[in-house]
Amino acid sequence: MRRLASKRILNRVRSVNVPLGNRRYEIAIGPKLIQELGPRCQKLSLGRRCAVISDTNVAPLFASAAQRSLAKAGFDPVLITVPAGETAKALRVVERCYEELAKHRLERKSFIVALGGGVVGDLAGFVAATYLRGIPFVQVPTTLLAHVDSSVGGKVGVNLKAGKNLVGAFHQPKLVLCDIQTLKTLPEREFRSGLAEVIKYGIIYDAELFMLLERNLPKLLKRNPGTLSEVIARCCEIKADVVVQDEKEGGLRAILNFGHTVGHGLEAISRYGKYLHGEAISIGQVAAAEISARQNGLPSDDVRRIRSLFEKAGLPTQVKLTASERRQLFDAMRLDKKVSAGEIQFVLAERIGKVVWGKRVEQTAIQMALDAVQ
Amino acid sequence: MRRLASKRILNRVRSVNVPLGNRRYEIAIGPKLIQELGPRCQKLSLGRRCAVISDTNVAPLFASAAQRSLAKAGFDPVLITVPAGETAKALRVVERCYEELAKHRLERKSFIVALGGGVVGDLAGFVAATYLRGIPFVQVPTTLLAHVDSSVGGKVGVNLKAGKNLVGAFHQPKLVLCDIQTLKTLPEREFRSGLAEVIKYGIIYDAELFMLLERNLPKLLKRNPGTLSEVIARCCEIKADVVVQDEKEGGLRAILNFGHTVGHGLEAISRYGKYLHGEAISIGQVAAAEISARQNGLPSDDVRRIRSLFEKAGLPTQVKLTASERRQLFDAMRLDKKVSAGEIQFVLAERIGKVVWGKRVEQTAIQMALDAVQ
Repeated sequence: MRRLASKRILNRVRSVNVPLGNRRYEIAIGPKLIQELGPRCQKLSLGRRCAVISDTNVAPLFASAAQRSLAKAGFDPVLITVPAGETAKALRVVERCYEELAKHRLERKSFIVALGGGVVGDLAGFVAATYLRGIPFVQVPTTLLAHVDSSVGGKVGVNLKAGKNLVGAFHQPKLVLCDIQTLKTLPEREFRSGLAEVIKYGIIYDAELFMLLERNLPKLLKRNPGTLSEVIARCCEIKADVVVQDEKEGGLRAILNFGHTVGHGLEAISRYGKYLHGEAISIGQVAAAEISARQNGLPSDDVRRIRSLFEKAGLPTQVKLTASERRQLFDAMRLDKKVSAGEIQFVLAERIGKVVWGKRVEQTAIQMALDAVQ
Repeated sequence: MRRLASKRILNRVRSVNVPLGNRRYEIAIGPKLIQELGPRCQKLSLGRRCAVISDTNVAPLFASAAQRSLAKAGFDPVLITVPAGETAKALRVVERCYEELAKHRLERKSFIVALGGGVVGDLAGFVAATYLRGIPFVQVPTTLLAHVDSSVGGKVGVNLKAGKNLVGAFHQPKLVLCDIQTLKTLPEREFRSGLAEVIKYGIIYDAELFMLLERNLPKLLKRNPGTLSEVIARCCEIKADVVVQDEKEGGLRAILNFGHTVGHGLEAISRYGKYLHGEAISIGQVAAAEISARQNGLPSDDVRRIRSLFEKAGLPTQVKLTASERRQLFDAMRLDKKVSAGEIQFVLAERIGKVVWGKRVEQTAIQMALDAVQ
């Protein structure tokens, strides 16, 4: 495993830098960071007015601490609470947020704090990207999935009826605060869903992280703070590495979508209701591994280890689909943003730790992979 | 007047370059350019699928020519028609466009052609800026206002109930085609409205353009093609000059908002119904000139020439407001994107051809200017 570049500071806050020129920012990972939100925002030359966007699950737990820290540091925060769940990633919710921001007279230097999971981060980030043609925002993720994935990298957006994340922007946050303590209260199913993205980083970029996960999964499942911090920081480093090389997804960044072609399709045909994102991409990654074995020489032992790690993490690796559901799935996959000239594109693994992207896969090969996860 | 950098080509198509690095693009100004849309798009390495977004007024006039040219050049265009008028710049119309794009399977390399006035350009540009996190778009403006202003510079967006253009993005087009012949059918009131932006360029940047307009206004009002082409090309050059120096409105670009603080306010309190944009900013520019005379030393003869040119162009320079309407106007101006720390900011003239921006103006000074245009 590559040496961790993250710095250990006295109170065990790790820091990962995302060096994107004048859009560079820091990801801080550690305990009690929400209490440091205000002082850390003070260093960013932002306006006084701000909005904390959170959802009905998260706001009761953490919003008052966040608002208190902001107010104490001289900011004037207003709280906007949106419904919990993927259905909040909708244009009508975006519109409601805009109207609230206008009502509270947010200006171009005002900023938004996204306090919640991936849904809140994507939604609030899109609002920030487009309100007054773009105002600054800070990510305070409160789920494992958001810690390791959605809060880093600047992809923001909402869903359409026709598909997930079909509307959005690239808008980098000014700061990401991964407060490990927010994970204490995270429901078990949500936590395990986040592990699907953690395992993904091992498969696409880092065989030693994958081995570490195989070894330390029990500690991770017990949410041991030290293990959590180490693993989250490593995932953020990998994501930052990838994003810096390809901010706007012209090439390499596509590898972050390993397992997502089938995964997004499953989410779409179940109308974002049945699966958590991590559950859908768990099945999607196993399907992508099956295709990789047939088409890209991924050793069968690697396929077995991949499937086994997802299973041990308590994630689904199988899906029962009727013929009609399969047809819907293909329709949904063709709407994916990664489609080019009508061809469905996949990220495929060569071995654990190494993937290639932009691979065309025939419909029959996808059907065989779906048989293998049936 | 600075030498025109635009090239005259055989068929009298002028070309203005907007040198924004890897986002550079060309503005072509001349007759019959809609018929060249397809071949000119071929040079831009775009995908095959595209959408022409137009409105119920413009589509019957020019959409079939645009679609024919695209199809002949090998593209697969679909037409999306939105309602005519400022009310189309709304999120629900944006959403309808997204759904149509998804239905027609537009991909990341697919593109949008904005065929219409400023409303269509702003709306279609915002759709392009956010669909699949941004796809390419081409502007084919069909009003004078859009030729000289909204189609150049990459500002796109829609209105909220709370104010105009409060939601948007910076998204540069890949090409702008100003087909002079589209202006032949433009209603007189719309044409005169466009002149308000033309006159603005003289005031903010080019005293010789202002004199040329004083001299040649009759020819311009008769829509003489040669005069039109010359004036439009000059306005595009000025706008390109300003945008290249300050793409994202950190400073200089603010000068393009001369007259817009009061103008946008008037549009907002009349719910975008009473005034055309050019009419509102005509009043706004005269008000700004009055403030400039009191606060910034603009000679009274310049104020007189400014007021007189707008009057000769058939544009309103007076507005009757009740005390309650004035209060609403101030509320609306405080919501303007140019507000900083609650202060209303103005662009003020020193003399015709030279302005300064970011000037604080006391409420009493604004009241006096409103008295002067009452």
